[in-house]
Amino acid sequence: MSSVLSFKIAARDAAARRGLLSTPHGVVETPAFLPVGTQGAVKGLLHRDLHEVGASIILANTYHLYLRPGDDLIARLGGLHRFIGWEGPIVTDSGGYQAFSLSAKRTVREEGITFHSHLDGSLHDLTPEKAVEIQTRLGSDLAAVLDECLAYPASGADARVSMARTLRWAARARRAFLSRPADAINPGQAQFGVVQGGVFPDLRRESAEATVAIGFEGYAIGGLSVGEPPDVMYEMIDVTAERLPEGRPRHLMGAGTPRDLVEAVSRGMDLFDCVLPTRNARNGQLFTSEGRLNIKNARYAEDPQPADPACTCYTCGHFSRAYLRHLFMAGEIAAASLNTLHNLHFYLDTMRRIREAISLGSLETLRQAVRQAYSPRSLDS
Amino acid sequence: MSSVLSFKIAARDAAARRGLLSTPHGVVETPAFLPVGTQGAVKGLLHRDLHEVGASIILANTYHLYLRPGDDLIARLGGLHRFIGWEGPIVTDSGGYQAFSLSAKRTVREEGITFHSHLDGSLHDLTPEKAVEIQTRLGSDLAAVLDECLAYPASGADARVSMARTLRWAARARRAFLSRPADAINPGQAQFGVVQGGVFPDLRRESAEATVAIGFEGYAIGGLSVGEPPDVMYEMIDVTAERLPEGRPRHLMGAGTPRDLVEAVSRGMDLFDCVLPTRNARNGQLFTSEGRLNIKNARYAEDPQPADPACTCYTCGHFSRAYLRHLFMAGEIAAASLNTLHNLHFYLDTMRRIREAISLGSLETLRQAVRQAYSPRSLDS
Repeated sequence: MSSVLSFKIAARDAAARRGLLSTPHGVVETPAFLPVGTQGAVKGLLHRDLHEVGASIILANTYHLYLRPGDDLIARLGGLHRFIGWEGPIVTDSGGYQAFSLSAKRTVREEGITFHSHLDGSLHDLTPEKAVEIQTRLGSDLAAVLDECLAYPASGADARVSMARTLRWAARARRAFLSRPADAINPGQAQFGVVQGGVFPDLRRESAEATVAIGFEGYAIGGLSVGEPPDVMYEMIDVTAERLPEGRPRHLMGAGTPRDLVEAVSRGMDLFDCVLPTRNARNGQLFTSEGRLNIKNARYAEDPQPADPACTCYTCGHFSRAYLRHLFMAGEIAAASLNTLHNLHFYLDTMRRIREAISLGSLETLRQAVRQAYSPRSLDS
Repeated sequence: MSSVLSFKIAARDAAARRGLLSTPHGVVETPAFLPVGTQGAVKGLLHRDLHEVGASIILANTYHLYLRPGDDLIARLGGLHRFIGWEGPIVTDSGGYQAFSLSAKRTVREEGITFHSHLDGSLHDLTPEKAVEIQTRLGSDLAAVLDECLAYPASGADARVSMARTLRWAARARRAFLSRPADAINPGQAQFGVVQGGVFPDLRRESAEATVAIGFEGYAIGGLSVGEPPDVMYEMIDVTAERLPEGRPRHLMGAGTPRDLVEAVSRGMDLFDCVLPTRNARNGQLFTSEGRLNIKNARYAEDPQPADPACTCYTCGHFSRAYLRHLFMAGEIAAASLNTLHNLHFYLDTMRRIREAISLGSLETLRQAVRQAYSPRSLDS
C-alpha cells in the first residue's frame, strides 16, 4: 500500500515555500494552519464555521479519540472522517504528547509508553506499532509516528537518549505502517516522521538526517514550543529544516503565536497546528491586527467598536467589544463561539497573507509587520 | 407616545388564529415561538443560526440584563437591539419571575419586590414603575408589566390576594408606560398586561377582565407551566383566552412542550417563549418527530442515523446520533450547539406546521399527531 500524498511547490521566497498538498480528502494550500479538533470537534465552532474562515484541514488527537469513543468504534462507523462528518483532510498526532502531558503516571520503556488514562485511571500501552494501528483505524490522511516528548529543560545527555529512542521507534513505526492491512479505511494515508533533539542543534541535525534516512511521506518537528525562548525555537527550526528534503511537506507541531507562524514559514515550514487561537478565545483573548486584546478588560465595557476594526469576520462584522465583554463576563457559550470564530479567522487570514506574500516575494515585509503587532507593546499584552 | 404595534388575523381554525404581528423591528408570523436569549444571547447559538432555523423574534430577560451589564449601559450603547446586534423584534419580560425564582431572599410589598441579586447578593427594588423604566431603556418591542408570580400550589385565598395586587401593579405600570419620555430608545414599544389567578378559573376570569379594562397593546398569561398538570394549564388558558380581545396578540409566558404549544394555539394563543428546547438540548435531550430522544443513552453509541431522520436541520443533515452522543459525553461545546440548533429547528418547524394547519383548517389533525409523538410511549420518555 502506498500513499497518494503529493506535494508541489508553487512559489518560493528565500527559504519559504508556497505549495499544494494533495491528500485523499482534498488539496490544501500551504503554508497552512490546522485548527485543533481534539475530540473530533474544534471547541466552540461547528464544521461549517471552519469552512467559513477558510480552514481546509484539521488536526485531531489520537490519544483522546483512542480513549473516547475508541478507535474500534470509529472504525466500525467508517473511520474518523465519516464519524465526525468532516470531508476534508485530517492530520492525527501519535498520542505520545498527550500520554506525556495529560497522564499523571506514565513510564517510558524501549517497548513504548505505559500510561494511565486521564479520564478513568485505566492502564494503557502505547507502542510505535499500536500508534500506527490506532491511526490506521481512524483513517486520517496524515499520521504521525510515536515520539518521546521530553520536558523542557532537559540535559543534552537526556535529550540524546530520548532522541535515539525516538529514532528506533520511528523505524518500527515505518515497518508497521508499510504492513497495514489491505482493507485499511484510508488506503492513501501518509506517515510523517517526527524530528526530536530538544534545544541542541547537533541532536536536531542528527535526528533529522536519520529520520529522513528511514523515509516518510512528510516530516514533522516535535518537542518545540514547550517553554523554550522563541529564538531558540527558531534556531532549532533553522537547523532542522535545512536537512529535510525539499519535496516533502514539513509540519511544525503544536505551534504557535502569529509571530511563530511567520518566522517558521520564513524558515521553510509548511504546516502548523496549535490550540492557541481556540483556547485563548475561550479565555477571552483575541488576536487582532494590532496585537492581543483581552476582552475581560473593563476599558471595553462600553466600547462600541468591533474587536478588530480591520477584520472581516462574522464576529467583527456584527458585534461590539462591549457585547463580547458582556457575553464573556456572563459566561455565555456565544462568547466562546464568537471569540473562536474571530481568532481562527485571524489565523487563517494570516496564513492567506503569508501565502500571497511568498508569491509576491514580500514575506520579509509581512514578517516585520507581524513582529511589530505582537511585540510587548501591542494592545493588551 | 403611542405604540406602532399592529396585529392582523389572517386565518382561523376554531379558536386558533393565524396572524401578522407588526413591530418597530419587523413583522412576525403568528403563532410564533420565541427562543429565549436570557442575557442577550440564545445559549449555544449565534444570531445567524436563529435566522437559519426561522426565528424572527426573541425574548430577553429584564432581570438578568438589569443586573448585568445594566440597563443604563445598554441605553448608552443605543438600546438592546443595537447592543446585542439583533435587528428583529425583541420581547422583554418584567423581571418579576426571576426576582421570585432566582433570588434566595425577596420580599413582596404593595410598593413592589425587594430582592437580593443572585450574582452578588446586592439589594434591589423592583416596582411596577421601575420595570417600565428598565424596559424603556432596553427599548424592547414588547414590554411586560410587573406581576407577582405565585409558587404552585397556592391556596385560593393567597391567589386572590396576589391577583388583586398584580392588577393594582398593572394600573401603575400602564400609567408609567404612558408617560415615558419623548426621547425613549424605542418610541414604538408596546406594553403587555399579564393575567394571573393561579389555577382558579374565577380568578383567571376576573384578572383577564380587569386587565383588559386597563387596556394594553397585548395580553400575556403568566403563572402557568409552573408545575400544575397540563390539563389544568389548558383549562386556565381556555377561561382566560375567551375573555381577551380578539384583535390583540396573546402571549403564553414560559411554555412549553410541543404538545403545550399546539394545545394553547388551539385555545387561541399566539406567542410562546420557553427555555425547554434550549436547556434540554444542553442536557442531551432532543425533540424529534417521534418524541423525545436522550442522546446520552448507550443505545445510540454506534447509531449512524441522524437524531431525527425526518428533520432537515444542519445537525440532522450532517451528523449521526453516535457522533452527537460522543460530543455530549466528551463535554464538547459543539454538543450544546448542534443539539440546540436541532431543538429550535424542531420548535420553529412545529410552529410553521401549526400556521399552515390553521390556514388549511387541519389543526385538529396536527394536534392529535403531536399528542401521539409526545405521549408517555414516545422514544425515550
